[in-house]
Amino acid sequence: MNIIKDMEKYISRVDIELKDALNKRNIYNTKIFDAMEYSLFTGGKRLRPIFAISSFELFDDNLDKVLPFAIAIEMIHTYSLIHDDLPSMDNDDFRRGNPTNHKVFGEAMAILAGDGLLNLAFETMSNYSLSSSNPLIENNRNIRVIQEIANYSGCNGMIGGQVLDLLSSPENMDEEALIYMYSTKTAALIQACIVSGAIIGGASENELEILRDFGLNLGLAYQIKDDLLDRGKDESINKFTYLSFHSLEDAEKEVAMLSQKAIDALDLLKDKDTSFLKSLTRYLINREI
Amino acid sequence: MNIIKDMEKYISRVDIELKDALNKRNIYNTKIFDAMEYSLFTGGKRLRPIFAISSFELFDDNLDKVLPFAIAIEMIHTYSLIHDDLPSMDNDDFRRGNPTNHKVFGEAMAILAGDGLLNLAFETMSNYSLSSSNPLIENNRNIRVIQEIANYSGCNGMIGGQVLDLLSSPENMDEEALIYMYSTKTAALIQACIVSGAIIGGASENELEILRDFGLNLGLAYQIKDDLLDRGKDESINKFTYLSFHSLEDAEKEVAMLSQKAIDALDLLKDKDTSFLKSLTRYLINREI
Repeated sequence: MNIIKDMEKYISRVDIELKDALNKRNIYNTKIFDAMEYSLFTGGKRLRPIFAISSFELFDDNLDKVLPFAIAIEMIHTYSLIHDDLPSMDNDDFRRGNPTNHKVFGEAMAILAGDGLLNLAFETMSNYSLSSSNPLIENNRNIRVIQEIANYSGCNGMIGGQVLDLLSSPENMDEEALIYMYSTKTAALIQACIVSGAIIGGASENELEILRDFGLNLGLAYQIKDDLLDRGKDESINKFTYLSFHSLEDAEKEVAMLSQKAIDALDLLKDKDTSFLKSLTRYLINREI
Repeated sequence: MNIIKDMEKYISRVDIELKDALNKRNIYNTKIFDAMEYSLFTGGKRLRPIFAISSFELFDDNLDKVLPFAIAIEMIHTYSLIHDDLPSMDNDDFRRGNPTNHKVFGEAMAILAGDGLLNLAFETMSNYSLSSSNPLIENNRNIRVIQEIANYSGCNGMIGGQVLDLLSSPENMDEEALIYMYSTKTAALIQACIVSGAIIGGASENELEILRDFGLNLGLAYQIKDDLLDRGKDESINKFTYLSFHSLEDAEKEVAMLSQKAIDALDLLKDKDTSFLKSLTRYLINREI
């Protein structure tokens, strides 16, 4: 498939940039950089950076401008997985077929590695924003992006979704709460990517709102597709998912409807080449793993 | 003492601003805001915001400009305490005479509340930076402050010091490592406050470097003073401190020498009224609790 090849091209750029961002070791802090690097380089699909880059490419082609922000979001995604896996949270020993961070580095270091990655995201973005190679500073695009990413990642975004997941029980979970959880825990960071890439690229406010809407529908479709793929596992641990409220057929229809809404949103960007984002959307909702 | 009165005046402004920053609850995320608020309002002395504000006041008197950054650092300080206290870290049940966050809200929520506070610090700073009431945006002072705070808080700053503390043992701890730990774990965030206040106030690069030096010496003096005050407790748990390498008398001399260096640095700011920062320095190194 062509899209895989395109994605690999992005991934290699992202990986180089991530390695470079970790290049801050001294004799006292090597261990935490090892722990952060371990989780950053253990099978991540780099979907979020790819979203950010391909959204940016609707408007500009100099990837150097967007990469620091794209990898910052990957750091935030990765920290959230490290903390999610902890014994007091989901207590997972494996992720993507490898031991989780705390199984390798211990619980205390895993907590600090998560903290370190969240912090490093903001170091990376702000250091780049003030570097001499940054040509964007005059119009505040970079601080606007930092704001969007911070808000989508926080207690009214990704962390808020994680809290709801943690506290969910048969008594307090209804479909409205589930959709709030999906829109924060999953869709928020995808929206952050799409919106960040567009801002750095120079999107208008109208284009930005269209892409925000694209990101939300894509994020929700992605999560319900996940529910469909994981349904055996989810049922065995009695997890609340879209399938707790809907039949398989309805869930499949919902994925198709949401992804169509996402694609329709892209069609509103009349003079932009959205073919890659459309292919990516179709690829993600048709995946079988 | 007059300084106590001055500090109380700052504290009430800081507390109002902190309450306001927590005003983002919805029906799904109330619990994490409760957890964050609990630790933010359980006996913190607000020293770090006071450092930021009083450094700012060397240059400007409109506190509205500096408060969002001052409270952001208090959020970062507070998250670091919540995570430090966790069972896998220092395993403390009490802080400032009250149950620690995880004893009240459970371990998972305490981890998320720490994450939430670190994230909220950057939300607060970036939201303010882009708000219509922010008059500073034209000269990039706010992104410069975000950069300074991010770097002082990260793996080459506060988190780095925490990692070293976690991994320290009789085999790998020497005085050089200890001073690195003190300069990161303790002094870095104090420097972040002093430098942030000065940048927002409009300090020159030269003034900034003088204040950075002030913050380092003050931070180190503060930490060694802490060692002197806590020596009974530290000895009982075999903790590495300045007193592992020096006599009581030498430690006292070091505190006096470092605080004098801090005050000497302030004297280099010839046309500024540094009297409050000097009183604060003397107050902190002469404290008995």
